[in-house]
Amino acid sequence: MNDNKTPSPWQEKVHRIIYEADTPAGRAFDVALLCCIILSIIVVMLDSVQELSARYGVLFHAIEWGLTAVFTVEYLLRLLCITRPWKYALSPFGIIDLLAVIPSYLSVLIPGSQSLLVLRALRLLRVFRIFRLVHFVSEIKFLTIAVTNSLRKISVFILFVITIVIILGSVIYLVEDENSGFTSIPQSVYWAIVTITTVGYGDIAPATTLGKFIASFIMLLGYGIIAVPTGIVTTEMALAARRKFHTNEACPSCGKDGHDHDAEFCKYCGSKL
Amino acid sequence: MNDNKTPSPWQEKVHRIIYEADTPAGRAFDVALLCCIILSIIVVMLDSVQELSARYGVLFHAIEWGLTAVFTVEYLLRLLCITRPWKYALSPFGIIDLLAVIPSYLSVLIPGSQSLLVLRALRLLRVFRIFRLVHFVSEIKFLTIAVTNSLRKISVFILFVITIVIILGSVIYLVEDENSGFTSIPQSVYWAIVTITTVGYGDIAPATTLGKFIASFIMLLGYGIIAVPTGIVTTEMALAARRKFHTNEACPSCGKDGHDHDAEFCKYCGSKL
Amino acid sequence: MNDNKTPSPWQEKVHRIIYEADTPAGRAFDVALLCCIILSIIVVMLDSVQELSARYGVLFHAIEWGLTAVFTVEYLLRLLCITRPWKYALSPFGIIDLLAVIPSYLSVLIPGSQSLLVLRALRLLRVFRIFRLVHFVSEIKFLTIAVTNSLRKISVFILFVITIVIILGSVIYLVEDENSGFTSIPQSVYWAIVTITTVGYGDIAPATTLGKFIASFIMLLGYGIIAVPTGIVTTEMALAARRKFHTNEACPSCGKDGHDHDAEFCKYCGSKL
Amino acid sequence: MNDNKTPSPWQEKVHRIIYEADTPAGRAFDVALLCCIILSIIVVMLDSVQELSARYGVLFHAIEWGLTAVFTVEYLLRLLCITRPWKYALSPFGIIDLLAVIPSYLSVLIPGSQSLLVLRALRLLRVFRIFRLVHFVSEIKFLTIAVTNSLRKISVFILFVITIVIILGSVIYLVEDENSGFTSIPQSVYWAIVTITTVGYGDIAPATTLGKFIASFIMLLGYGIIAVPTGIVTTEMALAARRKFHTNEACPSCGKDGHDHDAEFCKYCGSKL
Repeated sequence: MNDNKTPSPWQEKVHRIIYEADTPAGRAFDVALLCCIILSIIVVMLDSVQELSARYGVLFHAIEWGLTAVFTVEYLLRLLCITRPWKYALSPFGIIDLLAVIPSYLSVLIPGSQSLLVLRALRLLRVFRIFRLVHFVSEIKFLTIAVTNSLRKISVFILFVITIVIILGSVIYLVEDENSGFTSIPQSVYWAIVTITTVGYGDIAPATTLGKFIASFIMLLGYGIIAVPTGIVTTEMALAARRKFHTNEACPSCGKDGHDHDAEFCKYCGSKL
Repeated sequence: MNDNKTPSPWQEKVHRIIYEADTPAGRAFDVALLCCIILSIIVVMLDSVQELSARYGVLFHAIEWGLTAVFTVEYLLRLLCITRPWKYALSPFGIIDLLAVIPSYLSVLIPGSQSLLVLRALRLLRVFRIFRLVHFVSEIKFLTIAVTNSLRKISVFILFVITIVIILGSVIYLVEDENSGFTSIPQSVYWAIVTITTVGYGDIAPATTLGKFIASFIMLLGYGIIAVPTGIVTTEMALAARRKFHTNEACPSCGKDGHDHDAEFCKYCGSKL
Repeated sequence: MNDNKTPSPWQEKVHRIIYEADTPAGRAFDVALLCCIILSIIVVMLDSVQELSARYGVLFHAIEWGLTAVFTVEYLLRLLCITRPWKYALSPFGIIDLLAVIPSYLSVLIPGSQSLLVLRALRLLRVFRIFRLVHFVSEIKFLTIAVTNSLRKISVFILFVITIVIILGSVIYLVEDENSGFTSIPQSVYWAIVTITTVGYGDIAPATTLGKFIASFIMLLGYGIIAVPTGIVTTEMALAARRKFHTNEACPSCGKDGHDHDAEFCKYCGSKL
Repeated sequence: MNDNKTPSPWQEKVHRIIYEADTPAGRAFDVALLCCIILSIIVVMLDSVQELSARYGVLFHAIEWGLTAVFTVEYLLRLLCITRPWKYALSPFGIIDLLAVIPSYLSVLIPGSQSLLVLRALRLLRVFRIFRLVHFVSEIKFLTIAVTNSLRKISVFILFVITIVIILGSVIYLVEDENSGFTSIPQSVYWAIVTITTVGYGDIAPATTLGKFIASFIMLLGYGIIAVPTGIVTTEMALAARRKFHTNEACPSCGKDGHDHDAEFCKYCGSKL
């Protein structure tokens, strides 16, 4: 309904408040929104505790409806104040924002659907958006770069771990009998994951000597290979930190940058820096 | 009562013994105090064991009252020997020192309040003060710098973990029913923290297939992302360690820097630094 | 049966499809094979779940036999299309491929042997072969180099951990009595491994004060020494990463090295590398 | 009985075999001794399993007595073939070697004392001595240097962890009641150690909301601060690895070494390298 390219003045004004954070009003809006989200999640969490729900249920529902109204207005404003509302509506944040208000309205039609309000927890992800705009720009950027650069190596590692737990889970299924809890291969693989990640619930534990031997092997393996993702991320972080030490100075002849601090000549064209 | 700026001679003398550690008397005082604190904590700990309390209760109380007297005298001396007693009284160490003696006196009026003596454990923090003065100056400084520099990045990471456990705790609450122990969202979030940190008590554990699938995901996630704080701290420590080994001084002849602390001549051109 | 050195044209053609991945046909074969392996493992896993086995058992067996036929044909083709079939048959991958088909045929003769189909999980290792050929060459190479270089140091570490758990497991066996689950030294060593790797099932846990004291020591030790393998792997990765960024080539004019891979001119004297 | 300084020829010969490993005979002796130690430990471990002890008890005791004879002869030879036997007898290895034979002889006088044979596990430490002489010299040296250099920083860290668990264990003792297993402060401190090291047996677990909140805090803390020892050890290893890159070349003028690879002039005296 609002697909023309030139936004009207009030759209621009609302846009600056809702989407940007470099004005006092924008910052205030972000903080207020964050408070609403946190309050909303606390209410949903407390409402799931039976005793509290029995006593303060009416209050909780009143707050929920109030916040639903706030989030609905916010969602509509977000749609109205930009020139391409569908782009927002189909973005991850747009879908999360919609999912945060639908369950309340659904609960009028279908009684049980209110429990879907827990999906509001997803709105917490907006915290990072607000933080990014305010304080921790360089920290989030640093972590994002290091983690992104590590992802390929870590996915190879995770693939290796999954292969290992399937193989060892199958082996322990053959070794142990059902009384110890190893009732099927998926169950045994679940146990292998619990063990290799050193979580160790103890709801399933090997009973035979051979089973304990294999379990010991998995534990020592899990204890040792945790070094691998740690090494990957640390190396990437060290590289990211070192890159910060390179000069940002570009070569006056060829314009390329990324020179070491101790470089006196451009490593690409050989002219004096 | 003692707010004048010029301290009397005995105040100066006591001040040097109590607050400083560069004299033999000061060092002896610190060590004696540390012994009293440790003895006091051991007595409080043993007194909480019912069998020991029944048998040696009288002895324990005697020691407790004796140490309370010592700590009271120490507290009063600390107040009296400095020119601005309120500054100490309101400092964290001042409050901890006061909290260490109050419960004993309170227990005369209110019988049960003696259990608050466990607050004396906070006095253990004084260990670091004493250690700082004696031996481990550079180690504590190194760790403090590295950890302080990491704090911003780690707080972003902790925020991310908290967001994840709230979201995944809510999801598992929907998936699992109450018989497995997932009675409310806060309870499920608690379980998610137990799982993602790889603690794994096992008092609450998923029973359904989908629940175990989500649990496996959380475990592998927790196993993988522990790499992030480790990487952060390691990188900061490496930077702190490197800084220690290099001066920022550049060579006066050739202008190059990156010299070791013990270097007397430029390693590039051979001229005196 | 096919030991002559010069392969016939159809052998070469099949060889290129089966063993190599640089043609579209070879890549398609690899992906199809990977799908068959994953499907096969899923069927074996689901068939081990009693309820699913009771309901869909006939379907599962049909798929199993179909895949057994596929894997048998693949195995025979692998043997036929190379000039030295024994070299493949005795290689690790050749043995795994054989183990993947034998249980099905054995189950005709010996009923229970079908459970050995879990050995098919070993075929998952082929994932890495396929991945190596397609995408993650440098990542797998990087991880392999770093882990291989760490192996000697890590094996010393594992030896140290095994010595520690045998000693501490023996000590706790003397301290704790059998009611807590410490029924023999191997059992106590198993418990020590569970504890030092921070898995902590809780099926065996110390009951006496001295036992808990020793357990606390093992826990803190395990918590601290996990730093060792992590440090080893991280250091090796950092070395591997640094090597990637620097050539060993020295500048022909000034003789200095440590140049980046993309450097065309010496950063110290500016002459062409 | 053998305190004269000049050893007789047979003493020298035995000394070379027993104490050194650079001759074939010495190496054979070390390997044979290691086999005896491992066999001895396996027998002690198996003998502690009741079923095996009942069936093979006689065999086990025969092997034990045989190995006791071997170890006794070895111990006497070690004493006889050196010029200062007391130095060996009072060294850690000498005491361990004596403790490995005493329980067998004691068991003749005092029946139950045979269980002290588990002390033989300590002889496993000799593995590292033998390994050091054979293969892994540089690896063990590298790990020893890195761990030794880290020890001061890690001991500050462990002190910090102990302070934290005493404080938090005391707090949880006040918060939780005895039914959840928090029967005394030492017990609660034990639980705090189990939690902060992410072991998590689950024999003691908080039941109240506030207790779970504190437990969550301890878990996240433990999950985060494991980064600290890891960072310390990694940094020390990186330094140790880097030191390997320094030239071993000493300055021709002043004789000092430890110069960087890119150094052209001695950093101590300024003369050309």
